[in-house]
Amino acid sequence: MAIILQRRVDFPMIDLAQVVYYPEYFDLAHRFFEESWEKICDIAYPVITQQMHLGFPAVHTSSDYLAPLRYGDIVHCKLWIESVGSSSIIWKYEFRNQDEFLCWTARVVTVCVDMQTFEKRDVPDEIADALRKCTED
Amino acid sequence: MAIILQRRVDFPMIDLAQVVYYPEYFDLAHRFFEESWEKICDIAYPVITQQMHLGFPAVHTSSDYLAPLRYGDIVHCKLWIESVGSSSIIWKYEFRNQDEFLCWTARVVTVCVDMQTFEKRDVPDEIADALRKCTED
Amino acid sequence: MAIILQRRVDFPMIDLAQVVYYPEYFDLAHRFFEESWEKICDIAYPVITQQMHLGFPAVHTSSDYLAPLRYGDIVHCKLWIESVGSSSIIWKYEFRNQDEFLCWTARVVTVCVDMQTFEKRDVPDEIADALRKCTED
Amino acid sequence: MAIILQRRVDFPMIDLAQVVYYPEYFDLAHRFFEESWEKICDIAYPVITQQMHLGFPAVHTSSDYLAPLRYGDIVHCKLWIESVGSSSIIWKYEFRNQDEFLCWTARVVTVCVDMQTFEKRDVPDEIADALRKCTED
Repeated sequence: MAIILQRRVDFPMIDLAQVVYYPEYFDLAHRFFEESWEKICDIAYPVITQQMHLGFPAVHTSSDYLAPLRYGDIVHCKLWIESVGSSSIIWKYEFRNQDEFLCWTARVVTVCVDMQTFEKRDVPDEIADALRKCTED
Repeated sequence: MAIILQRRVDFPMIDLAQVVYYPEYFDLAHRFFEESWEKICDIAYPVITQQMHLGFPAVHTSSDYLAPLRYGDIVHCKLWIESVGSSSIIWKYEFRNQDEFLCWTARVVTVCVDMQTFEKRDVPDEIADALRKCTED
Repeated sequence: MAIILQRRVDFPMIDLAQVVYYPEYFDLAHRFFEESWEKICDIAYPVITQQMHLGFPAVHTSSDYLAPLRYGDIVHCKLWIESVGSSSIIWKYEFRNQDEFLCWTARVVTVCVDMQTFEKRDVPDEIADALRKCTED
Repeated sequence: MAIILQRRVDFPMIDLAQVVYYPEYFDLAHRFFEESWEKICDIAYPVITQQMHLGFPAVHTSSDYLAPLRYGDIVHCKLWIESVGSSSIIWKYEFRNQDEFLCWTARVVTVCVDMQTFEKRDVPDEIADALRKCTED
């Protein structure tokens, strides 16, 4: 089942055009990604990175900006897993505002690496299993 | 002709994994984008936004992260225009490090809007002409 | 009575030294400041800035960094008002981690201005009254 | 002699009030601080942190915001050393815009630490000597 998380649109996210600055969407997506680990796998992301020494750097992203997010909005993020390969994971994101208006969609491919050497690692089985259960519906 | 710009990889761009945090690439791309206007069109971007009241929000992005950028690196950005439509512009970015190693490529589609109303505007002719001359080679 | 708010220490706040990057403390403080308006005055900060057209830019800050905040920590912010003048307000911040360890203290002086002209304005009476009730204890 | 460095005010530094967001001044100060090491000591800051394993976290800051910085401005930073103790260093910053208008002043106390353990270290003699020569005039 997809994960739903929410955050306020804070003042520093807004740019001169009075809307959320476009790179901030990926920053927000990353913060939701971090938060999602506990819900998906029951492991906090700091444990993944600092005790299991695994990282999940992005290797490919694509995104569509459908409507602006503005100051005072609440971002509702729906996040799910499209697929899990031996070391790659495909993450999907949908951001809606408080009126359920779809503002942004993104697809991010990450690869599992050793945090020290940046060498590719297989996604551990129990994590892969949990991720595969995080489907869109 | 493509624009070449460069910036230092600063300390705050680096994350826990000792590499540039992935949303920072788009932030860097945006800073290069801003700087490029003077070189491409001979108009500073603050003049575009604040006197001509035009904005160029991103509506679609895609990117590939090929190799990490690290603290102490210099990012060399090659930026050019793939195409100019009536209101849309397609921007291409290549980031290389100081050893000419290709680290990141991206394609960003922007749409020309009125900065106050966010309504679509035609790219002014003299700007479209200048952008069309900013080809890859 | 002081306001207590909390936030996760997110990945992008961390720097190369594995601790929260020092300018991020002020960014965090600002996000807590924004959130506090509803609790102190029952007015959302976007209403203050966009309907009442008032802003509260910082004119003076001082801060002490007592212990690092690390990835995985939860920041508990205690925020209160030291004093309210005709247009100036003095804000106090204390950041503690999840173990109640005091990590950061700050004092920020803001001045009330018109958001369009940046000219000094008196703090409206009902806001000043509410702020004065937000004492340390 | 003081160090003079300059940077553009980039779009993402600007907030809803059309001025540089106040925590960004410390972020800018930190970027100037990094750049200054080569000029003051002839050692790049990445060498300091990653080969000498020294860090200089801020333990105290104070600052005055005298006039806003706006989009399109160029920040000219004057940076010098007020004093060097056994492990502490006091840094002074002055930011002016392109019209030499004084916008911001700050004083930052850093302490020299081992980057791995965060234990206090003496500032190495050759670095202390070089820093002491970086006086205001």
